[in-house]
Amino acid sequence: METKRVTVSAVEELIGLYFPVLDHGFIGVRDYMGSDASIEGAARGSYAYGNRQKTDQRQLLRYLTRHRHTSPTEFVEVVVHCAMPIAVARQWIRHRTASVSELSGRYSLMPMLFYTPTDEQIKRQSKSNKQGREGELPKSVVWEWTHDLDQSRDSTSRLYEWATENDIARELARIDLPLSTYTVWTWKIDLHNLFHALSLRCDLHAQWETRQYFNVLAGIAKRLAPISFEAWEDYHFYAKTFSRMEMQIIREFLRQPEGFNGLEFGLPKTEAGEFLAKFDEPTYQNFDLDLTQAKPAEFFENKFREAAEG
Amino acid sequence: METKRVTVSAVEELIGLYFPVLDHGFIGVRDYMGSDASIEGAARGSYAYGNRQKTDQRQLLRYLTRHRHTSPTEFVEVVVHCAMPIAVARQWIRHRTASVSELSGRYSLMPMLFYTPTDEQIKRQSKSNKQGREGELPKSVVWEWTHDLDQSRDSTSRLYEWATENDIARELARIDLPLSTYTVWTWKIDLHNLFHALSLRCDLHAQWETRQYFNVLAGIAKRLAPISFEAWEDYHFYAKTFSRMEMQIIREFLRQPEGFNGLEFGLPKTEAGEFLAKFDEPTYQNFDLDLTQAKPAEFFENKFREAAEG
Amino acid sequence: METKRVTVSAVEELIGLYFPVLDHGFIGVRDYMGSDASIEGAARGSYAYGNRQKTDQRQLLRYLTRHRHTSPTEFVEVVVHCAMPIAVARQWIRHRTASVSELSGRYSLMPMLFYTPTDEQIKRQSKSNKQGREGELPKSVVWEWTHDLDQSRDSTSRLYEWATENDIARELARIDLPLSTYTVWTWKIDLHNLFHALSLRCDLHAQWETRQYFNVLAGIAKRLAPISFEAWEDYHFYAKTFSRMEMQIIREFLRQPEGFNGLEFGLPKTEAGEFLAKFDEPTYQNFDLDLTQAKPAEFFENKFREAAEG
Amino acid sequence: METKRVTVSAVEELIGLYFPVLDHGFIGVRDYMGSDASIEGAARGSYAYGNRQKTDQRQLLRYLTRHRHTSPTEFVEVVVHCAMPIAVARQWIRHRTASVSELSGRYSLMPMLFYTPTDEQIKRQSKSNKQGREGELPKSVVWEWTHDLDQSRDSTSRLYEWATENDIARELARIDLPLSTYTVWTWKIDLHNLFHALSLRCDLHAQWETRQYFNVLAGIAKRLAPISFEAWEDYHFYAKTFSRMEMQIIREFLRQPEGFNGLEFGLPKTEAGEFLAKFDEPTYQNFDLDLTQAKPAEFFENKFREAAEG
Repeated sequence: METKRVTVSAVEELIGLYFPVLDHGFIGVRDYMGSDASIEGAARGSYAYGNRQKTDQRQLLRYLTRHRHTSPTEFVEVVVHCAMPIAVARQWIRHRTASVSELSGRYSLMPMLFYTPTDEQIKRQSKSNKQGREGELPKSVVWEWTHDLDQSRDSTSRLYEWATENDIARELARIDLPLSTYTVWTWKIDLHNLFHALSLRCDLHAQWETRQYFNVLAGIAKRLAPISFEAWEDYHFYAKTFSRMEMQIIREFLRQPEGFNGLEFGLPKTEAGEFLAKFDEPTYQNFDLDLTQAKPAEFFENKFREAAEG
Repeated sequence: METKRVTVSAVEELIGLYFPVLDHGFIGVRDYMGSDASIEGAARGSYAYGNRQKTDQRQLLRYLTRHRHTSPTEFVEVVVHCAMPIAVARQWIRHRTASVSELSGRYSLMPMLFYTPTDEQIKRQSKSNKQGREGELPKSVVWEWTHDLDQSRDSTSRLYEWATENDIARELARIDLPLSTYTVWTWKIDLHNLFHALSLRCDLHAQWETRQYFNVLAGIAKRLAPISFEAWEDYHFYAKTFSRMEMQIIREFLRQPEGFNGLEFGLPKTEAGEFLAKFDEPTYQNFDLDLTQAKPAEFFENKFREAAEG
Repeated sequence: METKRVTVSAVEELIGLYFPVLDHGFIGVRDYMGSDASIEGAARGSYAYGNRQKTDQRQLLRYLTRHRHTSPTEFVEVVVHCAMPIAVARQWIRHRTASVSELSGRYSLMPMLFYTPTDEQIKRQSKSNKQGREGELPKSVVWEWTHDLDQSRDSTSRLYEWATENDIARELARIDLPLSTYTVWTWKIDLHNLFHALSLRCDLHAQWETRQYFNVLAGIAKRLAPISFEAWEDYHFYAKTFSRMEMQIIREFLRQPEGFNGLEFGLPKTEAGEFLAKFDEPTYQNFDLDLTQAKPAEFFENKFREAAEG
Repeated sequence: METKRVTVSAVEELIGLYFPVLDHGFIGVRDYMGSDASIEGAARGSYAYGNRQKTDQRQLLRYLTRHRHTSPTEFVEVVVHCAMPIAVARQWIRHRTASVSELSGRYSLMPMLFYTPTDEQIKRQSKSNKQGREGELPKSVVWEWTHDLDQSRDSTSRLYEWATENDIARELARIDLPLSTYTVWTWKIDLHNLFHALSLRCDLHAQWETRQYFNVLAGIAKRLAPISFEAWEDYHFYAKTFSRMEMQIIREFLRQPEGFNGLEFGLPKTEAGEFLAKFDEPTYQNFDLDLTQAKPAEFFENKFREAAEG
């Protein structure tokens, strides 16, 4: 189709392709609006008269990001079609400034597809990060659990199918489905709110399963507005914020640079650890999408329809 | 405690009491701000100078409601502590202009409490309302299903307890829990957005389980701002909206009043039915709270803690 | 440019054209996303499995509108570039669920363009609608006022130019500019929120000047999603809502149709008048855009730049 | 009045008192909800079961702030009554997640009160901060401008009074009023969004006039939730964020601490300056409210009414 709108060929390329996520999920771009050029245009409007423009696009976009002038990034939008375990959907939906149209378990049959973690992902309750996972479990525990999960989903999905076949209302029949059941939605978000969501959900402390989805979303954002994305990486994602107290220590050290080792500057113990950790090299993440992993939209559409309608 | 703030004794009375909802759930008022008087105050500020006030409070609040001047109702807030099945929470969370702090299945043990519908609530998939339930099922189907639900929850909760005892990360262990598992949250909303939510969720087409919660919220709103609540009932909840085409029919009929029976005014069939149904008496709902049903906060707090920690 | 996105030729045609509004203002489409087909797609996703599709697009979109299933309309977006008097901008900005990037009076010179109402628009303070205008004024009053306005803007703009030439900070120099000064912004909104804004601002009680802008926005929406727009007209804009009490009267009348004249059914006097007025034929508005009125974007861009930079 | 709600005596003390801001403006607390204890309560709900509580309130609130777990702060609200020049109101309203009920220039007479900067505040257009003011102006320029402002407001307010006395609709008569005219509104915001607004508007780059208002709002927040406020100061307001590139320099320096002077690490010039500036001691601000400055609500209410009604 012909359009006079701003067009981004690196995203055009994605339309019609779906990226697999976890064992049954996917993300595919449905629609988008804007680009780095739209952000630039919205920003330049605010100082249109009586100023000589000196900055180039890249300089301007990085300035905006660095100084948190985020309004212009709201003019870029992306729409994705996604399938994810309900447990993931429950975290995802907390990003309120977005639009969602979800498969309804009241109207529709739910697909009998359930998320099973791979053995490598099944870990201990983390001691340091009280909400995460960390550390090897005995193989026997892993195997017994995944075996029990399999059995549990078997009986759960048989019960769901029995109930819907016996005409029990779908809104009731679904209440016994586990949080690992896949749901499907169309999701729309603007780039400002997407960057905010990525900062939280691509973080290594986010739940691993949810992170797999947001890594793909990051890859999409990187193609949609590459200069703004790089600026987000440089000034937000890989940036470090030092508290008022930490800044005093750094300033002190700059005057008397004899090492941070004997850190007895009065920070509480937890914060002293966090302070030092800020100087570690971050774990850089590669947000590039691997297009060879993507499949045509129909592949997933058929899979989910079959899983729902049997 | 002493306060100079606006105080509503009918809500003060609720603080510390929890209303049971469904088999294990509850709603209790945690905090509130404002009243009918605050709405009046915010509204009067907009025509403060150069006008003689003639309206009394009731007239003014009803005028505001009738003409959808809703900004002043945003100055009233309520905070509730609630427990509901995850299936209900998933509908509830869609009301985006609200604040939520939910029990985290990553940090916390989930309570082993599951929603089981009563036999009367287990109905057929509705034919007329494609997302609802309607019509009796054979007793045997009802009994077999609830029996199977019981068994399913038994094995599901044993598996969760086994997994967490074996130190499998909580964020993973929970993925096999069913949508009937109870979760707990604190929820805050302003009265404008609450009225909007009540219009959708106290409607007889809303899922019955969710409706039970919003009926209690309606009862709380009725105590918090009784005049505005009555205006909401009169001008929104029990009001009927007639389309442009329906208005033409009504106008025609007012000129030639020979009955609506032979309705051949060109409406599509569905809309013709909807049109006539608008003239039926609505099912009036009693949103009064029955305080004899309420229990002290501790009752539920202990029950949930025990269900979580075993 | 080539795109795989949904494209709407009736809006493509608008890109690059600006519609004049009031004496110096304009609205031009900058970008858009989605169409009636996107709304349909988002909606169909919610009952994807286990249902036979029977409805056609038009039926579905009208059903969604009628029953206020508004989420799918959030997937359509439009971006416009606009210039309006600050007095209008102050009303417009109250639509919070939208994005704005405005000309900054701190960074930029403000254009020395001021709104002057035409003689026909200068009316008395309305007695019936306490916030509107209604009724002829003596010609002498109209002429004296517009004459005084002219003088006032002359001295005001000379003072602004003097101040900025003498290097007084722009953020200060502007504080003496009148509310009739034109400002410029880029504005983005989704179709759900646009329909809501149109319902308020195309209403005949909205300020006339603001209405001129929203009538153009309505014309854009009508081209962007014509079926949804028609449904909005039929089920919202030209619909009438009858209160609980009004419905009792109508029901009574349907049983005993002897005329609404001797209306002594107990409604308060104001509401009795509002009730009868609902049966009047509405003033139908023609939201079609007249493309012969539009001018190329450059026309306005040059005019504003010259008005700012002298 | 008696209440079972959380009560904060340091804010109770403020109710009924108005703080003067600029030459005619004010801020007074109308209502509030919550406290540090409410934030703590909302947060503890998320890890209610299966965890031993170890942290005290202060530790917890500071942890939440440090790690941007901001949801619990949404449970605290404050309502203020304020008067400010329209130029300030136009910046203030950009904080969208808040509620406003403003004096309507369509319904009401506007008060004939105009902001005039003091001589010390009248400065040059800043060269370094393109949107600010900086540097002395010739006294003659300052005097001539304020003299002209006085004259301009005289004629402007006479014209407004003439127009409204001659029954020109108020919505029109006001369009010639300058942006320095005072308006009045009631404003409600939750603490999360207030902190965000304070970060932007108490910053020394914010317009000085707007900053005077947000400094008072900061003082109110400091009394409402003192521990969270201190945490906001420590971890956000006085914190510094170092970009990915800056962190590489700091890490390098920590290994080879021979001074930051010869900074040739490849940062663009602007960023190199910004980097070094992050090590300067910040300008600490005293957000304490001075109660001796406050006046009873009636003082301002009478002043504004008289200025409107003449």
